[in-house]
Amino acid sequence: MTATATHRHADGHLPDPAGGPAYRAPVQDILLALDVAGLERVLALAAYAHVDRSTLVSALEEFGRFAAEVIAPTDRIGDLDGAHLDPEPRRVTTPAEFHTAYRMYVDGGWGTLPFPTRFGGGAFPSAVALALQEMFASANLALSLNPVLTQGAIEALLRWGDADQQERYLPHLLTGRWSGTMNLTEADAGSDLGAIRTTARHDGALGWRVSGTKQFITWGDHDLAENIVHLVLARTPDAPAGTKGLSLFVVPRRILSSSGLPGAENAVRCTHVEEKLGLHGSPTCTMVFDEAYGELVGPRHGGMRAMFTMMNAARLSIGVQGPAVAERAYQQAHAYATGRVQGRVRDGEGSRPARLVDHLDVKRMLLLMRTGTQASRALLFATALFGDLATHGDHPDDRERARQFADLLTPVAKAWSTDLGFASASLGVQVLGGAGYIEETGMPQRLRDARIGPIYEGTNGIQALDLVTRKLGRDGGRWMRELLHEMGGSPPPPRSPTDPLSAAYRIYDRSLGCLASTTEWMLAKLDASPDDAIAGAGAYLELVGVTVGTWLLLRRAAFAVDSGVDQRARCIEEAEFFAAEVAAGAQGLAQTIVVGAGHLDMAVPPSA
Amino acid sequence: MTATATHRHADGHLPDPAGGPAYRAPVQDILLALDVAGLERVLALAAYAHVDRSTLVSALEEFGRFAAEVIAPTDRIGDLDGAHLDPEPRRVTTPAEFHTAYRMYVDGGWGTLPFPTRFGGGAFPSAVALALQEMFASANLALSLNPVLTQGAIEALLRWGDADQQERYLPHLLTGRWSGTMNLTEADAGSDLGAIRTTARHDGALGWRVSGTKQFITWGDHDLAENIVHLVLARTPDAPAGTKGLSLFVVPRRILSSSGLPGAENAVRCTHVEEKLGLHGSPTCTMVFDEAYGELVGPRHGGMRAMFTMMNAARLSIGVQGPAVAERAYQQAHAYATGRVQGRVRDGEGSRPARLVDHLDVKRMLLLMRTGTQASRALLFATALFGDLATHGDHPDDRERARQFADLLTPVAKAWSTDLGFASASLGVQVLGGAGYIEETGMPQRLRDARIGPIYEGTNGIQALDLVTRKLGRDGGRWMRELLHEMGGSPPPPRSPTDPLSAAYRIYDRSLGCLASTTEWMLAKLDASPDDAIAGAGAYLELVGVTVGTWLLLRRAAFAVDSGVDQRARCIEEAEFFAAEVAAGAQGLAQTIVVGAGHLDMAVPPSA
Repeated sequence: MTATATHRHADGHLPDPAGGPAYRAPVQDILLALDVAGLERVLALAAYAHVDRSTLVSALEEFGRFAAEVIAPTDRIGDLDGAHLDPEPRRVTTPAEFHTAYRMYVDGGWGTLPFPTRFGGGAFPSAVALALQEMFASANLALSLNPVLTQGAIEALLRWGDADQQERYLPHLLTGRWSGTMNLTEADAGSDLGAIRTTARHDGALGWRVSGTKQFITWGDHDLAENIVHLVLARTPDAPAGTKGLSLFVVPRRILSSSGLPGAENAVRCTHVEEKLGLHGSPTCTMVFDEAYGELVGPRHGGMRAMFTMMNAARLSIGVQGPAVAERAYQQAHAYATGRVQGRVRDGEGSRPARLVDHLDVKRMLLLMRTGTQASRALLFATALFGDLATHGDHPDDRERARQFADLLTPVAKAWSTDLGFASASLGVQVLGGAGYIEETGMPQRLRDARIGPIYEGTNGIQALDLVTRKLGRDGGRWMRELLHEMGGSPPPPRSPTDPLSAAYRIYDRSLGCLASTTEWMLAKLDASPDDAIAGAGAYLELVGVTVGTWLLLRRAAFAVDSGVDQRARCIEEAEFFAAEVAAGAQGLAQTIVVGAGHLDMAVPPSA
Repeated sequence: MTATATHRHADGHLPDPAGGPAYRAPVQDILLALDVAGLERVLALAAYAHVDRSTLVSALEEFGRFAAEVIAPTDRIGDLDGAHLDPEPRRVTTPAEFHTAYRMYVDGGWGTLPFPTRFGGGAFPSAVALALQEMFASANLALSLNPVLTQGAIEALLRWGDADQQERYLPHLLTGRWSGTMNLTEADAGSDLGAIRTTARHDGALGWRVSGTKQFITWGDHDLAENIVHLVLARTPDAPAGTKGLSLFVVPRRILSSSGLPGAENAVRCTHVEEKLGLHGSPTCTMVFDEAYGELVGPRHGGMRAMFTMMNAARLSIGVQGPAVAERAYQQAHAYATGRVQGRVRDGEGSRPARLVDHLDVKRMLLLMRTGTQASRALLFATALFGDLATHGDHPDDRERARQFADLLTPVAKAWSTDLGFASASLGVQVLGGAGYIEETGMPQRLRDARIGPIYEGTNGIQALDLVTRKLGRDGGRWMRELLHEMGGSPPPPRSPTDPLSAAYRIYDRSLGCLASTTEWMLAKLDASPDDAIAGAGAYLELVGVTVGTWLLLRRAAFAVDSGVDQRARCIEEAEFFAAEVAAGAQGLAQTIVVGAGHLDMAVPPSA
């Protein structure tokens, strides 16, 4: 059995550092993506008057150094050692290196960045916080999930908590001294939350008593924070069946004393930590609540809306794991393919020794990873900036339009980016060949860690349903048409045939045409025969991602040329590549969309 | 973080057996695929006069039971316990359960099936042996690699060994009492074998002395067989540089005594066993040869040709791991999705409780797994049967044509099938949702095991190069044109518009048209600007796979209807689904092929 070799000596050692080369934060690429996505317009809003660009750039650079130098070295340790449930005292423990990195994250105040100043936040655009999350996730995806969950809890309390709850919990959650969780899933109640059986009964002045078992709770227990603030979906005794009967409760691991400090242990414990394909450093817990003290958050039976607040906040944070893991995989694959001589390539009539990267197929794989990373990063930041505009835009019309664009693009940003992230990790394995299959090189961890992205925070199938059945048809399809109009107008026509991007623009125009016609097809089917629309939802989401991604890379190239940044030559090349290699397939996607559901009108065959 | 839940109780136990449901051998599907691929025509050849169909069916059924009942239960044990290098005596050990299963495999004589009777073989068609390999690989992919390597050694000795070598080694290799290896790869010499540095010097009457270090040697050492027969590529002192200077040597782990029994230990040892992403039960060894006794196999400096004999034999065996792992993943995903109630689906104006499989997206994923498995299985068996015809066909013209078709399709069967196998394993993870990410369910092992397929035995990028630069242009493109002609003629025209497959035939015809036009484009570019052809090689290989796969599924539907087999209704449905869901994208593939290499004319950007 032959495979591409790595350098390995007879004693079994690899000369490269185990786990792959160090991570370098791509601050310039991130900044450019923010600029292309409309950072300047957002910074001009009154709400961000206190944020100047140079502060923002410094924050990105400083966090980039922190991610590279402090967080990234903990990544492989977390994969190898993992998080464990110690029997006595029953507590989940994490590697010592996590403690150091997390403490520096808390002390640096990085978690507070996008939140209101009245709770100790920095009130930065959420897109900037998302950029930080990308770097954190590149450096250590498992550890980065802890602040993502905390952020979800913060969003829920900001939107639904009363003043007293906000006062008691938020300042500590913002810094990360306390962390947060989302306790939704139960056995038989995953994507289908209506089946939740956890109960909460009112206990007079003592608040509520929550009982039940939750599973797949990310960072449900651990030893990094002084307290853990669980947000728990449960059913009150008088509640109607299904999702309409769910209420949200805050259940602290340690009950706050009258002075607001963590006091007595609450009746909540972790009984099991999953052995997972990846994310070994992130404890995925089964949590048992046994008459645990809790407080109602928001209106009784208003749990689903509160839950959506948490999940919407988290979808972009999960989406950004796509470019995050792809960036890290690219850095390693790039180093390997440029540093290694293998075989020969044609050179005129003869041949010459070649680096791995000189083989067209390897180059193609690297460029797919590279451009997919840039495109999905741009989509994520653009979506986040629409969200910032939706909250803080100057005019109600601006806010409404931005909200609608953010709503449309959020499921695409989550699903398309995490699919690309996994695909890029797999390409990274392929570039390394046989070495990519060896755990010691670190590349398998990329693949294993990336595989959860398309599953959690609503599977990518559910994201496609959300796009098509909830977002697309809103106001008769108005918002996707408006987005298409904007996408048709913004690369400045007419374009000269000598423009290096003229071929890319042609492919883009065709892709945009495919998206426009399938959008109308979808809208017609949503009324007439919804199953046809639903059957094509996944391919439609992909077509939106590909077309918007190409649009953003073309805008990036135009922006780079106009502003004369150093990367302008390669921005042009990357847009050209992405159009030719990815957007050229748009017609195939369109054809699979309009096939409809007829071919699904069959029973799934039994297995043997 | 929410995710589709699995049933798990507070104590952390899953009610399903750990590692997923038992494997059931799909003997009827396999037999149908063999029939569609042309088994009857091959069995009619004089060389197979001794093989009657009922014997063959019994063999498939009996091996299917053995695979399901004896081999499959060892799969998860191998994943968890793995193979280990014990320091004293320096030997690789495998789980006890492997010993039992392997001994029964040897005692059953299964390994001898396709080989000549004069060495104790059964002289069955190789396609039948491939069908057995599929079931073995479904049951335990890691263990199944052992016989695959042995088969490579047998092929090399059959073709290149002298009578004495054949006499001494082959009878034992055929049964599997001795196993074989392929020692090719070295550090810095993986896909590029010209860089091999292992040496062999002649030692007079004592034969040759082989010295060097090989790595990534599959089943390079283990405790299952009485002897291990290494086939080693090495360089003699007088050898020219590059691949032209390589010779092949047989180096037994234990040197044969004068009576032919394994005697003294040879100077070859395993110094390292890799920690891999998957295939934990298959030891991947670094092997050190230190003046080890060896015998020249075939002509001096003829090593590359001999190596290709081994690799060609192995390519279909590796390819069949694609449907093998996809079949097993399908069985588990099917059981999960049909056994589990989750959420609701639309039902007229209202909705009703649904099984997971009732959600269109889940159904689509299952059917993609299912039909991809059937299509790639059909392609593999068809390619193997062309190989049998090439060897034993009645007329030289038949043999030549079959040889050319087998040569064309072998890289497609290897690459397309292993890509589909990995994609199916990933879909299996997705169908299970959060549970798919939990090792205990067994699904992550499918994904981890499947990831090596696209890498070993020549990466899938190398297969695409082989197809385009070595096979396609042969005789001016004659053979692909003949294959296209055959593919255009064999679904019997004219087809009635009331034919349930009329839509599938339309899509197929369009796919065939795309393949015909891109074939001509490729042939023109191979002369004029080879880089354009090479840049599109991967997409071209995929288009060949998709189109041939659709052709075979349509033939399968027609065959099933004509012969009235039980599965005929679902053969029609599966062909319809595959055409609509997969072949409908052919035009997109065609467009990415004819983009050429212009967009690759750039330096790969540095990482951050």
